[in-house]
Amino acid sequence: MRKFAIVNHEIITGTERRPTLYLLPVPMSDAAPASVMPVQNIEIARHTKHFIVENIRSARRFLKRCDPSIDIATLTFSVLDEHTDPADVDAMLQPLADGEDIAVVSEAGCPAVADPGALAVDAALRKGYAVEPLIGPSSILLSLMASGFNGQKFAFEGYLPHEASARQRRLSEMTRRIEREGQTQIFIETPYRNNKLIAELARTLPSRLQLCVCADLTGPAQRIERHTLAEWGRAKYNFDKIPTIFLLYK
Amino acid sequence: MRKFAIVNHEIITGTERRPTLYLLPVPMSDAAPASVMPVQNIEIARHTKHFIVENIRSARRFLKRCDPSIDIATLTFSVLDEHTDPADVDAMLQPLADGEDIAVVSEAGCPAVADPGALAVDAALRKGYAVEPLIGPSSILLSLMASGFNGQKFAFEGYLPHEASARQRRLSEMTRRIEREGQTQIFIETPYRNNKLIAELARTLPSRLQLCVCADLTGPAQRIERHTLAEWGRAKYNFDKIPTIFLLYK
Repeated sequence: MRKFAIVNHEIITGTERRPTLYLLPVPMSDAAPASVMPVQNIEIARHTKHFIVENIRSARRFLKRCDPSIDIATLTFSVLDEHTDPADVDAMLQPLADGEDIAVVSEAGCPAVADPGALAVDAALRKGYAVEPLIGPSSILLSLMASGFNGQKFAFEGYLPHEASARQRRLSEMTRRIEREGQTQIFIETPYRNNKLIAELARTLPSRLQLCVCADLTGPAQRIERHTLAEWGRAKYNFDKIPTIFLLYK
Repeated sequence: MRKFAIVNHEIITGTERRPTLYLLPVPMSDAAPASVMPVQNIEIARHTKHFIVENIRSARRFLKRCDPSIDIATLTFSVLDEHTDPADVDAMLQPLADGEDIAVVSEAGCPAVADPGALAVDAALRKGYAVEPLIGPSSILLSLMASGFNGQKFAFEGYLPHEASARQRRLSEMTRRIEREGQTQIFIETPYRNNKLIAELARTLPSRLQLCVCADLTGPAQRIERHTLAEWGRAKYNFDKIPTIFLLYK
C-alpha cells in the first residue's frame, strides 16, 4: 500500500494514485542535495524503494547525502548505463507493475538528458505509466543561462565525433547553424581533452565566433569564461580534467 | 556594504566578493517558490535590492510569495522585455558598478532561456561582472526528461515561423534533423493555437514520427502525452490556452 505521493508537487497520502517513474536529479558537484534541488526531491529520495541508476555507488552516496538514515540495504537498484542492452529495460519497470514507484538517478545532473535514462522513460511511456520529471541541476541549462548567448534557439550536440573528417564536417555545420539560424551550439568533451578542444576550435573556426566555457558548475571551482575564438587563441587557460561544457555563438 | 553573499552555493557574510548578476528562476505555475527551486534561491530573492524583470507585476508577486515581509517599495525594477532597446541594457547594470547585486527575473521559468534576459547576461559578461545562474524550473528541460526522446542531442526552436512557406521549410528541416541526426526537436506555440498546431503536425509530417505534448508542467493540470502523429491525427485532445511545449522525435 502506498504511504505517500507527490502530485503536482504537493505531498499527499493515500492509495488513489498511479505508480510513478520519478526522474530524480542528483548534484553535479559535491554540493549538498538540498542546495541544488527543491526539498520535495529529498522526500521522494527518502520514500522510494526502487531505483534505476547509471552507477550504483554514486546513487548510494547520493541517497546517504539526502538522508543518512535511509537504509540502503532495503532498496533495489537496476543499472542502466551505456552498456545496458535496451531489451533489458522493460524488466526494470516491474516495480511499477507491482504498484511501487521507481526513481531514475543519473551519475550527475538531470536523468534522461545526456545519459541513458531516456530508455527507461521511453519504456514507461509505452506501457502507460506516469512519468514525473523533477527539478534540479543541469549543466546544459545553467551554462546556457550563464553564456548570454541566444536562449531562444539552441542545440545540444553531446560529444563531437572523434573521426577527423566527421568532426570537421560537424564543426562546419555547427558554424553554419550559428551564422544562418542564430542557434547557440552546446557540446561537451572528455574532460582530459578540454584544453585540446579549445585550441582546436580557436585554430579551425572563424575567429570572430564567441566561445563560452563553463567549468565545475555549482561546484567549488565554478568558472564561466567567454571570449572570441581569436582571444581564446592567445589566452592562457587550463580546464584539464574539470567537468566542462562548451557553448559557441556569434 | 555587503551583508551576505552566495559563493559556490554557500551563504557567506563579509565584504570580499564581486557584485553578481544572479539569474533567478521563478515558478512556471502557481507552485510555491520553495517547491520548485533550492532554498537558497529564496535567500537571494530576500537579500537582493535591484531587479531586471520581464514583467514588474509578476516579479513583485513572485517576491511576495518568496517572503511576504519583503518591502517591495525599497527595491528597484528595470524592465527588460521584447520591446526593450538593447542599447538601454547597459544602464540597467549600474547597481553592479555601485557594488550591489542584481537579480534577473523572467515572467516564468529560467531567465535568459527563451526570454530577453540573455541581453543582460551578455552586457554583464562584456563588462567583466560575475554571473551566477541559479537552479529552477525549465519547461524545456522538464519536457525533454519526460519525453523519453533523445536527450543526448536536441534542439530548442522557440516559435515556428508564422509565414506559410517559411513554416513548411522549417518543419521539413526539423524532420530531416530527426531522421538523419537523431536530434530531438523542441518548440512552442502561442497557447490559443496549441490544438491547431497539433492538427497541422499530424496532417503535414511523416505519420510515424512521435509527438510528445507537455502541458502545465509543475502545475495542477500537468499532462504529458506521447503518441505517433498517426495516433494524434485520430485522437481527441484539448490543450487550448494551456502553456504547452512540443517535442518531435522518431
